[in-house]
Amino acid sequence: MQVPVIENVLKLNDEVAQINRSQLKQAGLFTLNLIGAPGCGKTALLTALTKKLADDLRIGVCVGDLATTRDADRLADSCAQVVQINTGKGCHLDANQVRQALSQMSLDQLDLLVIENVGNLICPVGFDLGQDVKIGMFSVSEGDDKAAKHPYIVTEASLLLLNKTDLLPYVPFDLQKFHDDVRRLNPDVPLLEVSVQADELDELIDWITQKVAATGAESAAAT
Amino acid sequence: MQVPVIENVLKLNDEVAQINRSQLKQAGLFTLNLIGAPGCGKTALLTALTKKLADDLRIGVCVGDLATTRDADRLADSCAQVVQINTGKGCHLDANQVRQALSQMSLDQLDLLVIENVGNLICPVGFDLGQDVKIGMFSVSEGDDKAAKHPYIVTEASLLLLNKTDLLPYVPFDLQKFHDDVRRLNPDVPLLEVSVQADELDELIDWITQKVAATGAESAAAT
Repeated sequence: MQVPVIENVLKLNDEVAQINRSQLKQAGLFTLNLIGAPGCGKTALLTALTKKLADDLRIGVCVGDLATTRDADRLADSCAQVVQINTGKGCHLDANQVRQALSQMSLDQLDLLVIENVGNLICPVGFDLGQDVKIGMFSVSEGDDKAAKHPYIVTEASLLLLNKTDLLPYVPFDLQKFHDDVRRLNPDVPLLEVSVQADELDELIDWITQKVAATGAESAAAT
Repeated sequence: MQVPVIENVLKLNDEVAQINRSQLKQAGLFTLNLIGAPGCGKTALLTALTKKLADDLRIGVCVGDLATTRDADRLADSCAQVVQINTGKGCHLDANQVRQALSQMSLDQLDLLVIENVGNLICPVGFDLGQDVKIGMFSVSEGDDKAAKHPYIVTEASLLLLNKTDLLPYVPFDLQKFHDDVRRLNPDVPLLEVSVQADELDELIDWITQKVAATGAESAAAT
């Protein structure tokens, strides 16, 4: 009895995700779906990134959380537009929630949209939101086994981040073991080591600005 | 259409949870359902606890994970009995999975059963497994906003743990803010600060051994 219902939910979700994708493409936006465990540093990363990129890119953020507007409040100063999506007891964002958030944004006044998913390494992976790419985020304080234990985000992501490298001296974490697990699951995905606290974000900023520029050029060529 | 199905799933789950609860009670076991984000330190905590308590208590562990038997392997040396439950893409344990795990254990040869839930602060909270108590686990590296952002585990837990206090000098974490959020949501729940790395587990060990002793006394009085 359950399987058809779940398939139906995912099928309906995918249809709405395609509507989002068309709308975002038409607006010439590059869209990230950022997925990571609670406390891996998603909001802190976005706060730092949006400050650094504020002069170059117009950035919008949709923030998913069970409760509170704390993440949106943290991002409000540095982002062009922020929408908070509170999911109650929902463990992931779905395409329809994002569709409603998009309806409250002026997409033609943005260059980059970041969807910060609910803090969870599992269900968010399965729900297409209409993004261009999924970014999977880990942190060294979570331990070096997390790629192996959460393989679906590793295989689905277009970019992986390993955050909080500033904590490496203080936590048990074998970088080689983590890299080996990632490579076994996904030989080609770029894996960037970052630290929000130590301000080591340059490679990520390069990655994002290149993607945004490529999307902008593609969008200009199409019009 | 969806709501009746979800209610049905939870109702069926609760029925099986009651079967588990009767079985565990009959065996005189005290049972913990340990819930926390990926990387908050659940397995490291259990490894340390089971080593320390090995001479005093016969401990069984059911470990939930998406993939790999790494957690069970880590626990195999220090536990009397370990069963790994791999959920695939499932974001929580349910009562039926635990029922199957229990069928592979010799419950009458245990004093304490710990169910280590899938690393996730959201859905595991809603699924009764037949436990005596839920323990909610946070870690300081996740940030001081996590109680407020995950209120359901705070209100549902019989005990809260804040792990990795050894990292407090190296991460931004306001202890008072975290405590205030916890107290606003659940004025009475005990909140213990622990550190697996710094071997600060005494209060937790006292809490557990008292609960196990009380359950044993109750069980002896009933027979």
